[in-house]
Amino acid sequence: MIIIMKDNAAKNEIAAVESKLAQIGFQTHPIEGETKTVIGAIGDKRNISMNEILLMSGVENIVPIMRPYKLASKEIKQEKTIIDVGHGVMIGGKTLAVFAGPCAVESREHFFKMARAVKEAGANILRGGAFKPRTSPYAFGGLGEEGLKIMRDAGDELDMPICTEVMDTRDVDLVAEYADIIQIGARNMQNFTLLREVGKHNKPIFLKRGLASTINEWLMAAEYIMSEGNDNVMLCERGIRTYETSTRNTFDVSAIPVTQELTHLPIIADPSHATGNYKYVAAVARAGIAAGADGVMVEVHDCPECAVSDGPQSLKPKRFLQLMDELRGIAAAIGKEI
Amino acid sequence: MIIIMKDNAAKNEIAAVESKLAQIGFQTHPIEGETKTVIGAIGDKRNISMNEILLMSGVENIVPIMRPYKLASKEIKQEKTIIDVGHGVMIGGKTLAVFAGPCAVESREHFFKMARAVKEAGANILRGGAFKPRTSPYAFGGLGEEGLKIMRDAGDELDMPICTEVMDTRDVDLVAEYADIIQIGARNMQNFTLLREVGKHNKPIFLKRGLASTINEWLMAAEYIMSEGNDNVMLCERGIRTYETSTRNTFDVSAIPVTQELTHLPIIADPSHATGNYKYVAAVARAGIAAGADGVMVEVHDCPECAVSDGPQSLKPKRFLQLMDELRGIAAAIGKEI
Amino acid sequence: MIIIMKDNAAKNEIAAVESKLAQIGFQTHPIEGETKTVIGAIGDKRNISMNEILLMSGVENIVPIMRPYKLASKEIKQEKTIIDVGHGVMIGGKTLAVFAGPCAVESREHFFKMARAVKEAGANILRGGAFKPRTSPYAFGGLGEEGLKIMRDAGDELDMPICTEVMDTRDVDLVAEYADIIQIGARNMQNFTLLREVGKHNKPIFLKRGLASTINEWLMAAEYIMSEGNDNVMLCERGIRTYETSTRNTFDVSAIPVTQELTHLPIIADPSHATGNYKYVAAVARAGIAAGADGVMVEVHDCPECAVSDGPQSLKPKRFLQLMDELRGIAAAIGKEI
Amino acid sequence: MIIIMKDNAAKNEIAAVESKLAQIGFQTHPIEGETKTVIGAIGDKRNISMNEILLMSGVENIVPIMRPYKLASKEIKQEKTIIDVGHGVMIGGKTLAVFAGPCAVESREHFFKMARAVKEAGANILRGGAFKPRTSPYAFGGLGEEGLKIMRDAGDELDMPICTEVMDTRDVDLVAEYADIIQIGARNMQNFTLLREVGKHNKPIFLKRGLASTINEWLMAAEYIMSEGNDNVMLCERGIRTYETSTRNTFDVSAIPVTQELTHLPIIADPSHATGNYKYVAAVARAGIAAGADGVMVEVHDCPECAVSDGPQSLKPKRFLQLMDELRGIAAAIGKEI
Repeated sequence: MIIIMKDNAAKNEIAAVESKLAQIGFQTHPIEGETKTVIGAIGDKRNISMNEILLMSGVENIVPIMRPYKLASKEIKQEKTIIDVGHGVMIGGKTLAVFAGPCAVESREHFFKMARAVKEAGANILRGGAFKPRTSPYAFGGLGEEGLKIMRDAGDELDMPICTEVMDTRDVDLVAEYADIIQIGARNMQNFTLLREVGKHNKPIFLKRGLASTINEWLMAAEYIMSEGNDNVMLCERGIRTYETSTRNTFDVSAIPVTQELTHLPIIADPSHATGNYKYVAAVARAGIAAGADGVMVEVHDCPECAVSDGPQSLKPKRFLQLMDELRGIAAAIGKEI
Repeated sequence: MIIIMKDNAAKNEIAAVESKLAQIGFQTHPIEGETKTVIGAIGDKRNISMNEILLMSGVENIVPIMRPYKLASKEIKQEKTIIDVGHGVMIGGKTLAVFAGPCAVESREHFFKMARAVKEAGANILRGGAFKPRTSPYAFGGLGEEGLKIMRDAGDELDMPICTEVMDTRDVDLVAEYADIIQIGARNMQNFTLLREVGKHNKPIFLKRGLASTINEWLMAAEYIMSEGNDNVMLCERGIRTYETSTRNTFDVSAIPVTQELTHLPIIADPSHATGNYKYVAAVARAGIAAGADGVMVEVHDCPECAVSDGPQSLKPKRFLQLMDELRGIAAAIGKEI
Repeated sequence: MIIIMKDNAAKNEIAAVESKLAQIGFQTHPIEGETKTVIGAIGDKRNISMNEILLMSGVENIVPIMRPYKLASKEIKQEKTIIDVGHGVMIGGKTLAVFAGPCAVESREHFFKMARAVKEAGANILRGGAFKPRTSPYAFGGLGEEGLKIMRDAGDELDMPICTEVMDTRDVDLVAEYADIIQIGARNMQNFTLLREVGKHNKPIFLKRGLASTINEWLMAAEYIMSEGNDNVMLCERGIRTYETSTRNTFDVSAIPVTQELTHLPIIADPSHATGNYKYVAAVARAGIAAGADGVMVEVHDCPECAVSDGPQSLKPKRFLQLMDELRGIAAAIGKEI
Repeated sequence: MIIIMKDNAAKNEIAAVESKLAQIGFQTHPIEGETKTVIGAIGDKRNISMNEILLMSGVENIVPIMRPYKLASKEIKQEKTIIDVGHGVMIGGKTLAVFAGPCAVESREHFFKMARAVKEAGANILRGGAFKPRTSPYAFGGLGEEGLKIMRDAGDELDMPICTEVMDTRDVDLVAEYADIIQIGARNMQNFTLLREVGKHNKPIFLKRGLASTINEWLMAAEYIMSEGNDNVMLCERGIRTYETSTRNTFDVSAIPVTQELTHLPIIADPSHATGNYKYVAAVARAGIAAGADGVMVEVHDCPECAVSDGPQSLKPKRFLQLMDELRGIAAAIGKEI
């Protein structure tokens, strides 16, 4: 890291900083400029709080050189992580992952119907919500364990892995029992006790980006999970909060090449939650794949107007089928396949 | 609510919408304009999902007229809520609340020292963290129950209520046993299972605004707690995420008059987390009180450079003492007192 | 529009609003709900200030039903606008527009070299800056008229239209004399006197989205130009300002389908300014085309490290050539061509 | 500045960077860490483009140490700038500036009436718009020179300086002829040709922060003006664009202490444009003064519902009178006066 001293820092202030740095294990290299001195400090002490230095007399600022995450970074693992999510599906390689299904599991009959429709269109992973985070306390909160069972049965019958969200530390064991992939939703991306809890399981984790999280915070959330021993984390870009209101969130398409530069973890695009509007889902799904995402997650419902949750952003099976064709063409144009 | 039909909506589409509205209990009033028809729908069905209508053929958009929260709104309670937090302290009235203390409880000796210092300066509530949400998995996570005991003992000895955060549904009972006020942190503002859990207790709740939450979502989070039976919720503005990087967050001072217009719940300003920098804390604390907040929460530490958490935003006791004097003058100028 | 009255609005307040509305030419339709009354007002008075109503006693809010722009909307023109920019290039149809060239015109020799390189790779429009908006007063501001001449000569020799920015009302005639397409930069999107001035010319306008403009404001800026008689406006999405700092701006890929729903004007993607980093340009360019943009604008420079402006976001000719191949494949996958 | 090399940078890459730095006049100090090398470079070359270095082989990033502005910074001027705006009013000292008046000059009679009202309440500077930036091309654009004359006459009669906006480089001489203070509006904060033009005059400049400008960009805009020779620049915080929609903009109250740390220029708070709603203006005006602003700008109108522009954010003279009382108390509490 680099310690930037104030313009008028006194010699003894500079000496005190150097001495403190040496004491906690850094080698120091002061550089005296015309108006100010900066001190280069060598040593990988990522988990040291820098406050002690930052608040010393004469210090203006500290510039970290190393990224704060390690396990999630390419520093320690260059090659892309490929995650085996079961039922023969691998995420992170040449073949794209297509997660599809209704927002919430509504009934056994309906979920099976949707599952068959998305499989037929080419999806290879089933998604659905059994525990639903809802902004209003008066809205439908999901079927709970009954929903998990339905998903599991559908996954087994159709030979597809299933992905579903967990919201509460008390439910992690239960969800892990049924799901092939455990989803951490955007609102829980910095629910640190939940991150630790899923990190103790060995099921792959689908980590949505927080509503207004930086890419750095997102990778730190992945680091939380990985620091407990679970390396099978995939990221999901699902739109960030901005001032623009014509879509529910703003899909940050650049996050795809940026994360691919910073981390070895796969990344999935979620155009449904990003736009909140079925009219824009196909365009954003295509953009995500064209930008290089390892897959997409799309909500599909045969009767969006009857959906108990997020109907306005769901594609009908027929439109999903057409989207899959477009995605196949785009994937081929950049050397991938669906 | 108002249903806006598309420009070219057919007569039978309009009729179908009216019929569906009638069926779910609304009275309808269609208004035929030059280029489009809108339908006024009367009935307070706040908890009905509007998707069914929104996705009907010919519908362009729906404009809700009623706010989505009820218990937190002034519709059902005009007079300001005044919360008795124990030890003779009332929040929401003419006398301002001053929460002060270190970010984290570090040791019994240190916490007592800080508690005495802030009490002497005029603070009337102790704050401190026993469970700490930390962005890095490698950072100090708090003393846990030991920290709660220390706070409780300090509160009892100094006859002051204590306020501390809970992060996990599994810890709610434990925290409720010790604390006078239970804090929900910014990162958990939409941790809905946690909101429900604290709603089942009768301890006052200190609800921080989410990192990038709208005022509407914040009041919906309060509604979650209140819908479980706990009406003693106070709000805390602690800065929102914006593009500006010279402060950690942007303190949304307008949130103070806005919430006071929309809700009967008290609101507290937190300049420490908002700015993340001790140099700006006093200015923002003064602004919060001048804008009409019911109190402030300020982090105080005698040795910020030794603090295990958030040192850079902590005021030293001497600076805090001076701030209290400034706040007294401002409070007096607007008819309040400390 | 819909006038929402306060919960406790008195009968005579409601009557006064109705009377005022009638006076300015609206038909009114009051709807009396359980807790409040709303008034539907019919009439297309887009250019009337609503303040007079909004501030009347008993009024809570006004909800507009009609969009504030007219000429730019699909209400009055359903079919896509196709703009003839000269030299046989049409923008808005099946064939995509590819604007390419260096950020700034640096010298005659260099611009011709780049122009030939991008033409060879498949670009059909030349871009370059003669007047440069620079954040620092100490940075290179462009060659001015000399730069315009160089661009014009290159365009004529290579039979390609040229696009360049105007920043000052005093330079509009000069730029219009040389350029085929006049660019309004992001920082001038709400420079209303400049918008009016270019609206008086008949050259096509390339209107970049403001740094933090809503889509609504952007279309209002187009409306400004069109209201002066110039209908040949194309939009350019170049990233918006958000809290995320890993890219210079956040490319709002959803703006492509959203504007295509709201307006008949073509839209171009600018991945260079959006990302500010050559490493991410190709991914975002592909995303823009996949989402349905009518073209891309890409900065190309043979020696980015020598560029006088925006070198870090420029592609080298070889990488641009490769990108063009990728874009051709994606265009084909969605029924377009380059 | 500090050049951060990539983890795997080769020795000859490092040598090449050092050699290039030396060539453009920097002294270099390489620091070899465990995983990467950083190079400290000494020399104040603020106006050198760093691209040349940034894009060299093996370079990961550059961290500037010096701020990009100089004239506006405290590096070269520690003491606060106090600006004499005429008619005996000084801005930046112990006595606060209170700019007040209607948004637009509507008529001679009306402006004089408002001017007398605000003077009586204690305002010491008149504000009003003769050239109005309007989002809609169909809205009232101001009286132009006639408006300037009215303001000048009112200022002379009441012995008060006047402040009004210029929007077009072609109008700068005209506005400078009448006004005591020339305002640059938020939408023109990065209209660089306009900034240069007003920099050539010696009238004090009132520089509003751009809609979504960083504090750094704002100070660079001040630097533009100052680099032309005009040192009398005052800043105006008027709210920034965020995701929150309950106010028109989010008043960034922290910008007051932050700019006071970074620059010697005075800063004024504009609660009217920040909130866009008269209900919140007083609270935010109080907050601005409490945070330490050198003054406020408040829109006042006797009949907001008849105002041709921005009525909803205007205070009536009676409410303004009351606000002035509150501000006097707050000013006194922090050692200032009105």
